[in-house]
Amino acid sequence: MNLKKVSDGLHKLNTSQIIALGFAGVIFVGGLILRMPFCSAPGQAVTFPDAVFTAATSVCVTGLSTVVMAVQWSPIGKAVILCLIQIGGIGLIALANMIFISLRRKISLKNRRIIKESYNLDEMGGVVAVVCNVVKCVFLAEGIGAVLYAFCFVPEFGIKKGLVNAIFLAVSAFCNAGIDLFGETSLSVYVSNPLVNITTIGLIIVSGLGFIVWWDLWDKFRKVLRKELSPSRVFRVLRLQSKLVLTMTGILVFSGAFLVFIFESGNPSTLKGAPLGTKLMASFFQSVTTRTAGFYTMDQSLLSTPTVIISLLWMFIGGSPMGTAGGVKTTTIAVLILSIAAYLQGKKDVEVYGRRIRESYLRSAMVVAGTSVLILFTMTVLLSAVMPGVDLADVLYEITSAVATVGLSRGLTPQLNVAGKWIVILTMYLGRIGPLTLGTAVVMRVRNRPGSTTHLGEEDIMIG
Amino acid sequence: MNLKKVSDGLHKLNTSQIIALGFAGVIFVGGLILRMPFCSAPGQAVTFPDAVFTAATSVCVTGLSTVVMAVQWSPIGKAVILCLIQIGGIGLIALANMIFISLRRKISLKNRRIIKESYNLDEMGGVVAVVCNVVKCVFLAEGIGAVLYAFCFVPEFGIKKGLVNAIFLAVSAFCNAGIDLFGETSLSVYVSNPLVNITTIGLIIVSGLGFIVWWDLWDKFRKVLRKELSPSRVFRVLRLQSKLVLTMTGILVFSGAFLVFIFESGNPSTLKGAPLGTKLMASFFQSVTTRTAGFYTMDQSLLSTPTVIISLLWMFIGGSPMGTAGGVKTTTIAVLILSIAAYLQGKKDVEVYGRRIRESYLRSAMVVAGTSVLILFTMTVLLSAVMPGVDLADVLYEITSAVATVGLSRGLTPQLNVAGKWIVILTMYLGRIGPLTLGTAVVMRVRNRPGSTTHLGEEDIMIG
Ligand SMILES: [K+]
Ligand SMILES: [K+]
Repeated sequence: MNLKKVSDGLHKLNTSQIIALGFAGVIFVGGLILRMPFCSAPGQAVTFPDAVFTAATSVCVTGLSTVVMAVQWSPIGKAVILCLIQIGGIGLIALANMIFISLRRKISLKNRRIIKESYNLDEMGGVVAVVCNVVKCVFLAEGIGAVLYAFCFVPEFGIKKGLVNAIFLAVSAFCNAGIDLFGETSLSVYVSNPLVNITTIGLIIVSGLGFIVWWDLWDKFRKVLRKELSPSRVFRVLRLQSKLVLTMTGILVFSGAFLVFIFESGNPSTLKGAPLGTKLMASFFQSVTTRTAGFYTMDQSLLSTPTVIISLLWMFIGGSPMGTAGGVKTTTIAVLILSIAAYLQGKKDVEVYGRRIRESYLRSAMVVAGTSVLILFTMTVLLSAVMPGVDLADVLYEITSAVATVGLSRGLTPQLNVAGKWIVILTMYLGRIGPLTLGTAVVMRVRNRPGSTTHLGEEDIMIG
Repeated sequence: MNLKKVSDGLHKLNTSQIIALGFAGVIFVGGLILRMPFCSAPGQAVTFPDAVFTAATSVCVTGLSTVVMAVQWSPIGKAVILCLIQIGGIGLIALANMIFISLRRKISLKNRRIIKESYNLDEMGGVVAVVCNVVKCVFLAEGIGAVLYAFCFVPEFGIKKGLVNAIFLAVSAFCNAGIDLFGETSLSVYVSNPLVNITTIGLIIVSGLGFIVWWDLWDKFRKVLRKELSPSRVFRVLRLQSKLVLTMTGILVFSGAFLVFIFESGNPSTLKGAPLGTKLMASFFQSVTTRTAGFYTMDQSLLSTPTVIISLLWMFIGGSPMGTAGGVKTTTIAVLILSIAAYLQGKKDVEVYGRRIRESYLRSAMVVAGTSVLILFTMTVLLSAVMPGVDLADVLYEITSAVATVGLSRGLTPQLNVAGKWIVILTMYLGRIGPLTLGTAVVMRVRNRPGSTTHLGEEDIMIG
C-alpha cells in the first residue's frame, strides 16, 4: 500500500520529472549504502562525498572516480557498484517495469507511456516485449564479453578473481561505465593485448549504437538468413536512424583513430617506439573510448595537445541515442552538419539518404547542443573557481568527460576538494539526465505528408 | 583603362568573392610593402611571413603580432600599418566606393548592390550617402578619441610623439585593431589611468555597436532634441536590431566585468592588493577588450583559469554586426539563446520585444556559430600539431583570438614558428571574411505578412 501511495504520487509527475527524480534517488540511496562500513575494504574508510561520487559515477555510467575502486571497496561494495552500473546502463524505467513484470502485475498505461516516450516506440502493444528484449540483449552481450575476457583474466588471476574481473569489466564496458577493478591505470597494462582491446572496443561500439539500430540490424540479418533480402541491399533498407548512426560511428571511429595515430606515433610519452600493432590498437582504443566509454590504455595527461583537442570534441559528440553512451549524440551532430551544408549550398530542404529531415529535428538538435555547451561552460567556470591554480586543460577535460558521461580524466578527479566533488557529481547527473529528459520532452513524430509524391519521404530519427 | 579591365573582371564575381579576394589582395600587397627596407626601423630586418602577418593583423583588425610594433617599424612602416587598419576598419567596399565618389564617377548599379548587400540597406538611393556617413562617423569618433588621449600622452611623450601615439591609438581602438606603439605590454602601464581606460572602453564599445545602431540612436536623439520624442520612449521606438545589440552589449560588458572582478580580485599575479578603483577599471577593461578589441591592461597569461574561460567565450561571441568588431556577433547569440528558451518553454514562435524572429534567422545564426566552431576546432588542431609541446590554454586562446579578430594572446604569437605564423594568418583572414561573406550570402528580407493582424510583427536584424 506504501507502494500504491508512491505510485499515485508518481502519476502526478511527467516523464522527465520521474526520470530526473529517479536518478537522483538511486544516486542518494546508492551513496548511503556505499557509506556503510561493510562496503569498504578492511582498514579503508570512505567520506560521504566520496560515497555519493561513486554512486553517481556508477549510476550515470560515467567512470570518473575520486577513490581507487579496486582498493577502496569490499566485495560487497563492488557488488553494489556493479548493480548501480547495471541499473544506470539498462535504464531505471526499463528496470522498474521489469520488476512489475516479474511481479506479474499488469503494466499501467501510464508506465507504458513512460517507456514509450523514453524509447520512442510507435506501438504501445510492444512495450513489454521491448523491455524484455532490452534486458535480454544486454545480458547476452555482457555474457559474450565476459567469456572472451575470461580467456585472458582466468590464466592471469586464477578462476575466482579472473571471472570476477571478466564479468565486472564486461558489464562496465557494455554499460559504457568505464569502471574497472585493476587499480589506478585502467587498462594501460593491456595496451598490447589484442583480446582485451578487441573485446572492449567491440562492447563499446555495439552498446554505443543504441538498441533501435541493434534491432534494425538484427531484423535485416534474419531476413538475409531467410533469403528474403540480398546482403548488398541491407544498408539501403535500414531505418534512417540506423543509417545515420552507422555512418557517423564509422566516420568518428576511423577518423579519430587516424588522427590519434598521426599525433601520438611520435609522442615519446605514449607510443613512440612501440610496435606498429600496439600503435594501431592504442589509437583505435583512444578513438573508441572517447565515445563515452572511459577506459584507457594511454595516460590521458601524457597525450599531445592535438590529441587532447580531438578527444575533447569526440567526448562532447559521444555515442548514439537509445544506448548506454552519453554526449550530445551522433544523430544530433549529423543533423547540424547536414543542415549547415544544405544552407551553404543554398538548399531549403535538408536531405540525406533520400529522406528529408524536418525543421523540427534541426531545432531539437540545436537545443541539445546549445544546452550542453551551456552546462559545459558553467560547470568549467565553477570547477576552476573552487580549485585554485587548476590547469585549463585538466578542468576542461574533467567537465567535458563528466557532462558526456565519459570518465576519462587527466588526473584531476582524485585531487578534487569537497566543493569540486559536488560540482562534478552535479555535472555527471545533468549530463546523464539532460539528453534523456530532453529526449522525452522532445520526441516528435514525422508524418508522410498526404498527397505529396514529389517530396522526399520523411522518417523518424532520435535527437540527443 | 586598366581600371576598366579590373572593373569588368570584378563584375563577373559575386559579392562574397569580391570581398574575399579584396581582403587577400590587400593583405598580400600590404605584406610586400611592409617587407621593403624603408618600412623597418634602422637596424631591423623583417621576414616575409612577419611582414604578411603584420599586414593581415592590421587589415583584419586583429592585433596579434609576431614582432614588437614599436620597435620593428620605421615611421613609414607605422603609417602603412595605420592605413591598413583604417582600410580594414572602414571596410574595403566602402573605401573603394569612396574612391569612385571622389573621382566623381557615377557608382554603377553593380557596386551599389555590393554595398547594399554588405550593409543590409533597404533603399538603393541612399548608398552614396551611407558610405559618406560611415567615413564621417569613423573620422569624427577617432578624432574625439585622439583629442582625449592627447591630454594624457602629450604631457608624457611631448607634442610630436604624444600626438602620434594618441592618433594611432584612437584609430586602432575605434577599428577594434588592438595594435599600439607602446612596446610589448599594450596598455598595462595605464592600468590605473582613468582617462586612458575610459576613452579606450568608450571607443571600443561605441564602434562595437555597429553603424546601424549608431544611426538609429542618433536619429532618435535628434527627435528628442526636437521634442518629437520623449526620452523615456527612446528604447521602445528603436529598431529591433538596436534593442538586441544594446541589451546583449550591456549584459556582456557588465556580467563579464563582474565575473573578472570576482576571479581576479584575489589573484596575486594580477589585481590582489590593487586599489578598488584599479580593480574595477581593470575588470571592465578585460571584459570590454575581449569583445574583440585586443588591448590589455593585465597580462593574459597571468589570469586565473575561470577568467581565461570567460575571456574565451566573450571573445568567441565578439561584438555586433555592421561595426569593426569580430566574433560570431551578439545578435547571433541572442537569436540562439531566445530560440532555445522558446523551445524549452514549448513555444513554437521565437519572440522578443514584441517581435517574432523568423525561422530563417535561426538557421543563419546556427550556420554562423557552427562554422565558427568548425574553423576554431580545425585551426586549433593544426596549430598545436605544428607547435610541439604547446599548452592547450595557449593555443586555444591564440586561435579563438585570431578567429574572432580579438588580438589577445597568452604570449604564443612571438614564439610561433613559420608554419604556425601561416596558420594564424589564415585563421585571422577566415575570421575576418567569414562573417562578412556569410553575411552577404545570407541577407534575408523579412516581410510583414499581409492580412495577419494577430501575429506579432517581424523586423530585419543582422546575423553574423
Ligand atoms: K563512461
Ligand atoms: K582586434
